[in-house]
Amino acid sequence: MAKMLYEGKAKKVFETENPNEVIIYYKDDATAMNGLKKGTIADKGIMNNTITSFFFDLLAKHGIPHHQIKKLNDREALCKKVSIIPMEVVTRNIAAGSLAKKMGVEEGYVMKRPIVEFYYKNDDLGDPMINADYAEAFGLATDAQVAEIKACALKINEILKAFLAERKVRLIDFKMEFGVDADGKVILADEITPDTSRLWDWDTNEKLDKDRFRRDMGSVEEAYQEIIKRLTGK
Amino acid sequence: MAKMLYEGKAKKVFETENPNEVIIYYKDDATAMNGLKKGTIADKGIMNNTITSFFFDLLAKHGIPHHQIKKLNDREALCKKVSIIPMEVVTRNIAAGSLAKKMGVEEGYVMKRPIVEFYYKNDDLGDPMINADYAEAFGLATDAQVAEIKACALKINEILKAFLAERKVRLIDFKMEFGVDADGKVILADEITPDTSRLWDWDTNEKLDKDRFRRDMGSVEEAYQEIIKRLTGK
Ligand SMILES: Nc1ncnc2c1ncn2[C@@H]1O[C@H](COP(=O)(O)OP(=O)(O)OP(=O)(O)O)[C@@H](O)[C@H]1O
Ligand SMILES: Nc1ncnc2c1ncn2[C@@H]1O[C@H](COP(=O)(O)OP(=O)(O)OP(=O)(O)O)[C@@H](O)[C@H]1O
Ligand SMILES: [Mg+2]
Ligand SMILES: [Mg+2]
Repeated sequence: MAKMLYEGKAKKVFETENPNEVIIYYKDDATAMNGLKKGTIADKGIMNNTITSFFFDLLAKHGIPHHQIKKLNDREALCKKVSIIPMEVVTRNIAAGSLAKKMGVEEGYVMKRPIVEFYYKNDDLGDPMINADYAEAFGLATDAQVAEIKACALKINEILKAFLAERKVRLIDFKMEFGVDADGKVILADEITPDTSRLWDWDTNEKLDKDRFRRDMGSVEEAYQEIIKRLTGK
Repeated sequence: MAKMLYEGKAKKVFETENPNEVIIYYKDDATAMNGLKKGTIADKGIMNNTITSFFFDLLAKHGIPHHQIKKLNDREALCKKVSIIPMEVVTRNIAAGSLAKKMGVEEGYVMKRPIVEFYYKNDDLGDPMINADYAEAFGLATDAQVAEIKACALKINEILKAFLAERKVRLIDFKMEFGVDADGKVILADEITPDTSRLWDWDTNEKLDKDRFRRDMGSVEEAYQEIIKRLTGK
């Protein structure tokens, strides 16, 4: 049995024979409010593995370097092992959730341009908001790495936004993690799924993401399934 | 009697005959924790008017444009009227207060380089932390204005840090406000005082600023007076 390197809230990470590769296993567990709310979403792991693979294939076509080597089966993907940069990178097009509350605007407020936010990836500290300057100041990453990450985040946002718009999905916001691979290169890692993004139906603004779980809106599985249908046509 | 345009927690702003100029009156009132803690610091208004004037004169010598025209008397200064950009600009050299707590480091942690933070100046929303991207996205300022403000903040930090170091004072952090004057130029406004900065004795790390009031440490007036002595030699 492969050794488990890490069990997170949504995924498990296993080592492989190759020290530069890991297997990521997608679970059905769902949490919200920094772990306060817990539950499961039926087949979420299967759906999120599919959705991440789809998005990562799309991004690769546009020249974005990422960690995924291949989808192995329903719940597992083979990925380059990276040293995760401890910053959550959130890109937003429309104010929703904590941002709308914080700025005193209605959820759905269209910002004049996308914004990129950084949060210190540290569960004990509650993933506090930081900014690009903190990276070098606290030794989380270099200024050059952060500049590269920010430019990459905005490029990924444009690729996903345009692709989703054609499929009648509005990309509200999404979270990314980046890591440094064995060659010292900064690449996109982790997942891009309805767990880590806000996706609204273009016409009705119906939520097709984890907010349905967070806010007890029901039809959570159906929403994830709908995203797969929009992406793949299946 | 001149019309009062605004009464804040620490100052009053009066109009003058000249529509492009205001008189700023420094009060003794002190607040902390977003207004939850209230009190007065004897002669604070007099001391802060002196300290701000001193710093603004110093910055002018280094080519930093600011709002102050002249100190009028003990508690009043004549200033260019500006349209305040609703962002508090905090520059930090050493982690203290909310930053140390947020990042899980000891107060006094020396960052590898200075950082500049932006907060949305909105009391009702509790002055939330934002970042440079929010300015253009929410119509608070343009990207060009924010870039100018950030560069200016770092330059001011270097000037004050070097000056204070010679006087055995460590500049930990400080808050600035910028505004747009009648010519459309972005200039430094408001105040720079122990109310809006953290200043520690170089050798002992004794606090010489409003943290003495916030944390009920006593000798608040004496600390402000000590800063004046270090700055002016008097
Ligand atoms: N290519 C990779 N190599 C190594 N670790 C990775 C890679 N991609 C993602 N990770 C990490 O694997 C873990 C995935 O687990 P999961 O997403 O469930 O974590 P989590 O509960 O969100 O908690 P946290 O992300 O705070 O650790 C994360 O810690 C993530 O940063
Ligand atoms: N040159 C200027 N022209 C116009 N307004 C100014 C100028 N300089 C500072 N101000 C504003 O004058 C007010 C000073 O009052 P004070 O510092 O007591 O406010 P405050 O209680 O800190 O509250 P707030 O800053 O949130 O309004 C502030 O609102 C500040 O932004
Ligand atoms: Mg995760
Ligand atoms: Mg003020």
